[in-house]
Amino acid sequence: MSRTASVICCALAVWFSLVSAGFAADREKLLTDPGVYGTFAAFRIDPDWRKLETPARIAQLTTLKAVIEQHREKLAIEPYLLTGLSEHADVLVRAHATELKDSQQFLVDLQNSAFGKYLTSVAVFHGLTKKANYVPAFPDQMKNDLKAPSESGPYAIVIPIRKDADWWALPQDKRTGMMQEHTEAALPYHKTVKRKLYHSTGLDDFDFITYFETAKLDDFQGLILSLQKVKEARHNRRFGNPIFVGTTKSVDQLIETLAQ
Amino acid sequence: MSRTASVICCALAVWFSLVSAGFAADREKLLTDPGVYGTFAAFRIDPDWRKLETPARIAQLTTLKAVIEQHREKLAIEPYLLTGLSEHADVLVRAHATELKDSQQFLVDLQNSAFGKYLTSVAVFHGLTKKANYVPAFPDQMKNDLKAPSESGPYAIVIPIRKDADWWALPQDKRTGMMQEHTEAALPYHKTVKRKLYHSTGLDDFDFITYFETAKLDDFQGLILSLQKVKEARHNRRFGNPIFVGTTKSVDQLIETLAQ
Amino acid sequence: MSRTASVICCALAVWFSLVSAGFAADREKLLTDPGVYGTFAAFRIDPDWRKLETPARIAQLTTLKAVIEQHREKLAIEPYLLTGLSEHADVLVRAHATELKDSQQFLVDLQNSAFGKYLTSVAVFHGLTKKANYVPAFPDQMKNDLKAPSESGPYAIVIPIRKDADWWALPQDKRTGMMQEHTEAALPYHKTVKRKLYHSTGLDDFDFITYFETAKLDDFQGLILSLQKVKEARHNRRFGNPIFVGTTKSVDQLIETLAQ
Amino acid sequence: MSRTASVICCALAVWFSLVSAGFAADREKLLTDPGVYGTFAAFRIDPDWRKLETPARIAQLTTLKAVIEQHREKLAIEPYLLTGLSEHADVLVRAHATELKDSQQFLVDLQNSAFGKYLTSVAVFHGLTKKANYVPAFPDQMKNDLKAPSESGPYAIVIPIRKDADWWALPQDKRTGMMQEHTEAALPYHKTVKRKLYHSTGLDDFDFITYFETAKLDDFQGLILSLQKVKEARHNRRFGNPIFVGTTKSVDQLIETLAQ
Amino acid sequence: MSRTASVICCALAVWFSLVSAGFAADREKLLTDPGVYGTFAAFRIDPDWRKLETPARIAQLTTLKAVIEQHREKLAIEPYLLTGLSEHADVLVRAHATELKDSQQFLVDLQNSAFGKYLTSVAVFHGLTKKANYVPAFPDQMKNDLKAPSESGPYAIVIPIRKDADWWALPQDKRTGMMQEHTEAALPYHKTVKRKLYHSTGLDDFDFITYFETAKLDDFQGLILSLQKVKEARHNRRFGNPIFVGTTKSVDQLIETLAQ
Repeated sequence: MSRTASVICCALAVWFSLVSAGFAADREKLLTDPGVYGTFAAFRIDPDWRKLETPARIAQLTTLKAVIEQHREKLAIEPYLLTGLSEHADVLVRAHATELKDSQQFLVDLQNSAFGKYLTSVAVFHGLTKKANYVPAFPDQMKNDLKAPSESGPYAIVIPIRKDADWWALPQDKRTGMMQEHTEAALPYHKTVKRKLYHSTGLDDFDFITYFETAKLDDFQGLILSLQKVKEARHNRRFGNPIFVGTTKSVDQLIETLAQ
Repeated sequence: MSRTASVICCALAVWFSLVSAGFAADREKLLTDPGVYGTFAAFRIDPDWRKLETPARIAQLTTLKAVIEQHREKLAIEPYLLTGLSEHADVLVRAHATELKDSQQFLVDLQNSAFGKYLTSVAVFHGLTKKANYVPAFPDQMKNDLKAPSESGPYAIVIPIRKDADWWALPQDKRTGMMQEHTEAALPYHKTVKRKLYHSTGLDDFDFITYFETAKLDDFQGLILSLQKVKEARHNRRFGNPIFVGTTKSVDQLIETLAQ
Repeated sequence: MSRTASVICCALAVWFSLVSAGFAADREKLLTDPGVYGTFAAFRIDPDWRKLETPARIAQLTTLKAVIEQHREKLAIEPYLLTGLSEHADVLVRAHATELKDSQQFLVDLQNSAFGKYLTSVAVFHGLTKKANYVPAFPDQMKNDLKAPSESGPYAIVIPIRKDADWWALPQDKRTGMMQEHTEAALPYHKTVKRKLYHSTGLDDFDFITYFETAKLDDFQGLILSLQKVKEARHNRRFGNPIFVGTTKSVDQLIETLAQ
Repeated sequence: MSRTASVICCALAVWFSLVSAGFAADREKLLTDPGVYGTFAAFRIDPDWRKLETPARIAQLTTLKAVIEQHREKLAIEPYLLTGLSEHADVLVRAHATELKDSQQFLVDLQNSAFGKYLTSVAVFHGLTKKANYVPAFPDQMKNDLKAPSESGPYAIVIPIRKDADWWALPQDKRTGMMQEHTEAALPYHKTVKRKLYHSTGLDDFDFITYFETAKLDDFQGLILSLQKVKEARHNRRFGNPIFVGTTKSVDQLIETLAQ
Repeated sequence: MSRTASVICCALAVWFSLVSAGFAADREKLLTDPGVYGTFAAFRIDPDWRKLETPARIAQLTTLKAVIEQHREKLAIEPYLLTGLSEHADVLVRAHATELKDSQQFLVDLQNSAFGKYLTSVAVFHGLTKKANYVPAFPDQMKNDLKAPSESGPYAIVIPIRKDADWWALPQDKRTGMMQEHTEAALPYHKTVKRKLYHSTGLDDFDFITYFETAKLDDFQGLILSLQKVKEARHNRRFGNPIFVGTTKSVDQLIETLAQ
């Protein structure tokens, strides 16, 4: 980014942090509570965007930032850069809200903004966070292990999953048994790969949206390979297709990348 | 919406309500009677639309309203906003008519209108409402429970379903038994999730279009999860793909959103 | 359509009927004989078309009419309006010819015409009409019933079908038995739903193109539901996908609709 | 084609036949020898092409002819017209070469030519011609029958095929047995339908590209129906999808059609 | 390429080799070590590119070269020409890096470059190189045979593979046994076909990206046919779809081809 662009971005950053002070949603609660809707919206940036001059890009990217700031009161919003790592998308936005219509309003405002005119919707996934279904029946040691913190970023991976009809027809204790085997396979990667689960049945064409963050992609791959080997994996009718891979970015970092 | 835009919209609203008085179809009958065709048409709004100035948008949105008013005599028409909640569509229109060619004429006029030039057809589903097939054989208590009213909106979900060959080969009593189990699973959600069923075999590539309205998306998800666990669900060859999720809007509300 | 447009269309209609007198193919024979190729070509009309002024549209639609007239000597050509009833297509053309290359020449000329520049090919199906395979082995009563006339239009539905490998491996008498059950299921709808069968194996990715016309869509749906319940239906590897639903139009009616 | 256009084309034809004399590849050998790569490249012509004036079209079509002439030394190149007979493609080119990179150079030059700017690649299939795998084990009478000449054009059909895992796991003698049954079913059509086989495993997503030419499409359909009934057909995981149907054209005939 | 273009390219080549001296990543290590991420990014060149004049093309291609040079410090980057050999892509880039975010930065810079404005992302595959899983358990003779060098280019083929659930559920020794059979089938082609394996589970929708280089495409086809016949092949849920076929090019050769 040129020096001028940097100065403009800094000035904007200060201004936004002033005007938005005190209005932000309780971000921590949105990111950890059950009963919260997570929306994953992936966009392609139209080729015409790349033909704009840098000042025009910066002017429009400020509208992206303004829209995000404007919705900070109700939503926790995180952007990701997908270009080069995912097939047909450039930007991913994850929004957490207690009402899905608030996320819709944010995405409507985003697409109506000056920058939004260059975005094409590629995929939208929704899921509801819930209290862990199976964990209460797990052994105490496993429950404890699951409470340890996980390291995060800069890599983020989103894998939507659809289970087969047999899975849903199984009695709860059979599913609990399989989920315990699944969790045992995942535990060795608990420290270096952060996971978050969204229940999406009926809200899109999947049953779960699984979200991962890691600094160690080889550990993440080890985790997925381990999970593929347990019996529960045989009930995945669809796993990914698409998988989104990207890197976590602050709004300012994303703007800086897109302004280039 | 700017103040000017609001004033224009209000003026239009008054004018339309004057000119259209007394011509409306018997909306209630269309929405409740058997033998009515429901058409679901989803559209993407072309990116060029977002590049128009607000006055130009409002001028064109009045043509949307005019087309809807013009067909109120024969059709019950409801618009939905899908942007941000569904993958490749922005607007959904549900039209009820006693003749499918009346719905076609409406959609031809819509696409020929000034606003329609910015719409691309993404999906069209049709279904016929029928007297309940299986309910007559259900226990009286269940019949009674099904008569209680359901709460509606603001969320609307459309899930098309295709059954497998085995389903259609089953004798009627076997299907009735499974549908009774299905209905038992659904009853706990009867109050907070409104459902409507359309038979679409031969009219599109599905057998049923299921339509839901709710204020409680978590109850809706609970309903779908319950329905996935009954035996009848194993006969769903296709469930969704696509699922459309949106919010109910009056024509004026939709215009206001799109005029921004 | 404006008055001017009507006058122009009428004048054209007279002129064409004069110049084309005596050259038309034996339309009845093409529509009823075995050994005739039926081509179904579905088109989307490009969005730019809707941005033209009415006189420009009419000027170009006359080229559509001229191309159809020009090929009347060898082909029976029928247009359908799909807009609003089918997903990705606006216009369907059905052409019958004794040589497929004559249909190709017609479609090449259509796409090269001024109107054709706005058409994008969405789907092309071909099939050969044949003497009924199984009917000779049917009971006399059934043969008689099949000779009764069927009512037609205004609704037309095209359903392509692909059979599975098991179907083709069955001995002829087994297939005849199943087709007799199929025909029994269809007979109650014989009066109100007109059917025509095209054999398309090798000419496109289907085995049959089934064509229906009716004024009673609910009877048509009853017919398809009945056919789904017989054993032969289990050998449908693909049924529809896409199904095309539209309304029959004369060339003049289609031009009138598109000129608006 | 207008008279001027005809004159230009003729003049070009004479000039090309002069400059290219003596440089042509041994076309017969390329079309009959084993160890030759066949490439099938299908293109859609962009809608903008149809908006050009005839002289501009002819000027650009001469570049198509020039590119074909330029590669005559190493390749045997044949064009086909698909418009109206195949779904998403207008032109098919079949090129035979002893090195696939020579076909690539031809197709790069084609796309870089003035006419090539209007071509969008729709599908590319490659296959290697081989000595017949199974024929040596066939009875002498069958071997003799296969040596009789077949009639060709004007219809050409390309059907790509992928076999299932079971097919490749079968021992050679089982496959030979099935291929003998396949050949017996095909022999009655040997005279009127010309066939050519390309082995494409690993070069694209198919195992075989089958190519047909015929003047009698009903015989071609009879052939495919017969082949669908033998046991070997059960090992077709994919058959067609897409099937390309077109008509054979000389370069001059194709230019004449496209110049209109 | 014209003489002027050649001179410009040569001058650029000298300049780049001067400025980039001493900064290149340890290319050999990146291409042979385990623990390296390989990214395959396939692009279509927009049709507008072909409408530019040669000097404009050359000016923009220098930005392609500049971006590749700029990332030589951390990445090993190889370009391939796909035009004419693969269906929907023109250029493939393979990048090796120890951190996937370095490959992302390269691809972001590439798409932001003047040339990048004409590239549309068609497919992105990622994989991690690993120490051979099964080889330690193979017989010594086989281990030795695998150490012999393989011949390379000019043909490069990329085949992504997804295994089925059964494969991952097998115990390690069963998989080793099958991989030994697989390796035996591949050894006859070891000399003329170069292979490289990338583990992609979780990083895209495949489990492996297999990369091949050869001068003898018929040997490559023999290899794939042999591999299709072993038991391990029955566990390929997806093989290719898409397969990319292209030719290896130096950056200068690619620029020369694209500048034409």
